[in-house]
Amino acid sequence: MRRVIALITDFGLRDPYVGMMKGVIAALCPEAEVIDLTHGVPKYNVVLGAHILKISQRYFPEGTVFVGVIDPGVGSERRAVIIKSRRFWYVGPDNGLFIPAALEDGVETAWVIKREVAGIPSDIETFHGRDIFSPAAARLVCGADVNALGTPIKVEELVRIDSLPRKPEVVGEGAVSVGVIYFDDFGNALLDSSLKDIEELLGVTYGSAIEVSAGGRRFVGKLVKSFSHVSPGELSLYVGSYGLLEIARYMGSARELLGDVGRVVLRRLE
Amino acid sequence: MRRVIALITDFGLRDPYVGMMKGVIAALCPEAEVIDLTHGVPKYNVVLGAHILKISQRYFPEGTVFVGVIDPGVGSERRAVIIKSRRFWYVGPDNGLFIPAALEDGVETAWVIKREVAGIPSDIETFHGRDIFSPAAARLVCGADVNALGTPIKVEELVRIDSLPRKPEVVGEGAVSVGVIYFDDFGNALLDSSLKDIEELLGVTYGSAIEVSAGGRRFVGKLVKSFSHVSPGELSLYVGSYGLLEIARYMGSARELLGDVGRVVLRRLE
Amino acid sequence: MRRVIALITDFGLRDPYVGMMKGVIAALCPEAEVIDLTHGVPKYNVVLGAHILKISQRYFPEGTVFVGVIDPGVGSERRAVIIKSRRFWYVGPDNGLFIPAALEDGVETAWVIKREVAGIPSDIETFHGRDIFSPAAARLVCGADVNALGTPIKVEELVRIDSLPRKPEVVGEGAVSVGVIYFDDFGNALLDSSLKDIEELLGVTYGSAIEVSAGGRRFVGKLVKSFSHVSPGELSLYVGSYGLLEIARYMGSARELLGDVGRVVLRRLE
Repeated sequence: MRRVIALITDFGLRDPYVGMMKGVIAALCPEAEVIDLTHGVPKYNVVLGAHILKISQRYFPEGTVFVGVIDPGVGSERRAVIIKSRRFWYVGPDNGLFIPAALEDGVETAWVIKREVAGIPSDIETFHGRDIFSPAAARLVCGADVNALGTPIKVEELVRIDSLPRKPEVVGEGAVSVGVIYFDDFGNALLDSSLKDIEELLGVTYGSAIEVSAGGRRFVGKLVKSFSHVSPGELSLYVGSYGLLEIARYMGSARELLGDVGRVVLRRLE
Repeated sequence: MRRVIALITDFGLRDPYVGMMKGVIAALCPEAEVIDLTHGVPKYNVVLGAHILKISQRYFPEGTVFVGVIDPGVGSERRAVIIKSRRFWYVGPDNGLFIPAALEDGVETAWVIKREVAGIPSDIETFHGRDIFSPAAARLVCGADVNALGTPIKVEELVRIDSLPRKPEVVGEGAVSVGVIYFDDFGNALLDSSLKDIEELLGVTYGSAIEVSAGGRRFVGKLVKSFSHVSPGELSLYVGSYGLLEIARYMGSARELLGDVGRVVLRRLE
Repeated sequence: MRRVIALITDFGLRDPYVGMMKGVIAALCPEAEVIDLTHGVPKYNVVLGAHILKISQRYFPEGTVFVGVIDPGVGSERRAVIIKSRRFWYVGPDNGLFIPAALEDGVETAWVIKREVAGIPSDIETFHGRDIFSPAAARLVCGADVNALGTPIKVEELVRIDSLPRKPEVVGEGAVSVGVIYFDDFGNALLDSSLKDIEELLGVTYGSAIEVSAGGRRFVGKLVKSFSHVSPGELSLYVGSYGLLEIARYMGSARELLGDVGRVVLRRLE
């Protein structure tokens, strides 16, 4: 059985960056099976990348090696690391990208990568995804001893970041202000809130009507299990594929309706 | 030999949705070989998705399982189905997406998927591509009995849709009005017409000059076998890779020239 | 071990064109491992595509077959070719796309493809990537005799193009005008210059400050090893992943700052 290396980056797919990484992996470990988790993480958004990894890893085979390259600090003093959790491996920058995922799965051990052993020769300092992380992952999958590829460090020494979702901010009786993390390719708004927080803070349940204020305008949405439970053109709030509360406009784009806002206020309607 | 699962969705590639589906398949059936047919079908455009599948399947190995997720009805009462044609399998929503392809290949049998057997556990209702269709396809490829994964239904009970291309509308002597289905990434206009219909209705043949009216402006194109048979900047009409009549501007973009129109009128020039 | 077919096209990923090519390869040679080098080459930009291939091939396994489809001449008299270099194979149009890569690796032999042997039946003339190049590559990887697939020609008969980077133009004491080849997905400006030329013509070294004039406005950047060596918002010049001199704005987009310019003037600051 081929072992999986899954890639998550903010590279987009216009450039040959991802292709070069796959070439490196194929050259060093032809048995590895490479899967693109996504290359569309918004540029430099380590927090959202970490969240995607946390909610996606459960779908991958045990033993999957996740290579993550959302790495604005490339070429600086930030360290390159290998992290092992109960079922998975993570290879990439020590900037918190893997922490929420590794903690959720049960983090076990970490190593600082020895570039001269794990990497490939390179005369540039701006593409560790190709020159260090991909070759390290390929060698790992093809049987290299992780203690040769890196130097063990304490898990506590790894750079930490917050997990999504964060707590909504109460802004009045039955009203909360919630960050809009991202609009996905359908134009659905990913909210920085869990369903549970909204249920508790607003006192709403499935079927409740909720007022959505965005950029000074007001809309009405319904809390449902799927965006298809309202009529075309109507707004709904539901738990989406990112594991977050989302706002969708059925058969349309919430982004076009709400505008490209950074926050919304949600209010319970009587 | 690894059996192919080919994916066609309207998800785009910014989000981790496709990556999650591939994780599910790799976890349930590592032997499956996953190929992206496309994830760029215009959102919710089941008719165009069905056409792409119909014209593309002939290039895939016999036994390929096509997983299709253009599925605005997810979470509603629409059924999840497995369909078998002479050479292929199709897994996805019962919304007509697979009908033109299955009919062309010779449709044989259909099943309504038993989610509790074929799917994976999930607490959301908005991503059947990941939670039902991908695992069903993976189990199928890895040898599960299709009669365990689903309940047989009559092929006649499947939801039907029209096939592309439709008939152009005659709007005068030697003139037809034709829908523009889509502009591809090169800016070529895909027309809702076959070559044969244009030849018959306009009385044109290869080499003929054709007037193209779009948004109140008029252009002249030439009916050719390849867009490279005219000079840079000139318009041509030809049969393209979608198996449809297309309008291209050589070394440029027909979309930029014609505008983002929904219909054009084609007229034979003497 | 599965042999690699690597794809480089200007197709983008919205359409099913790449998916069809992968179907053809899977049908003719299931053992082939297909890797997307990139499908985001700017439309018709053979020179940039050739450069990407030249700088990327070193990362791929020996024996990799590169299928290149940046092919505005499809359907015209331009020939379809197979080229062999010391370690690699190239399959695609005879328009210069493979020349810089093949020369760098050491070009050995070339063949004009016999379509009736190497291709698949097709009734269109606009998609040789699917109908000729992909099947030829698949047959090659699965053991077909290259002398059956094509007719040997002299390497000297192949169409040639220039290699990037070209020489900057001196426009004054310590000042050069440099073409902007492309802005990558991060908004970094790829310059048509090597580091060496800039060092020699401007008399700069790592750490030097350089004035960047773009569209009538002036900015200051620093020559560094990585864009992370300046502060967020500041400009840097460095050698990037394309092997070219680049201008980046740290944690931002040089494209947004400089505008979508075609040339910049670089001047040494005292």
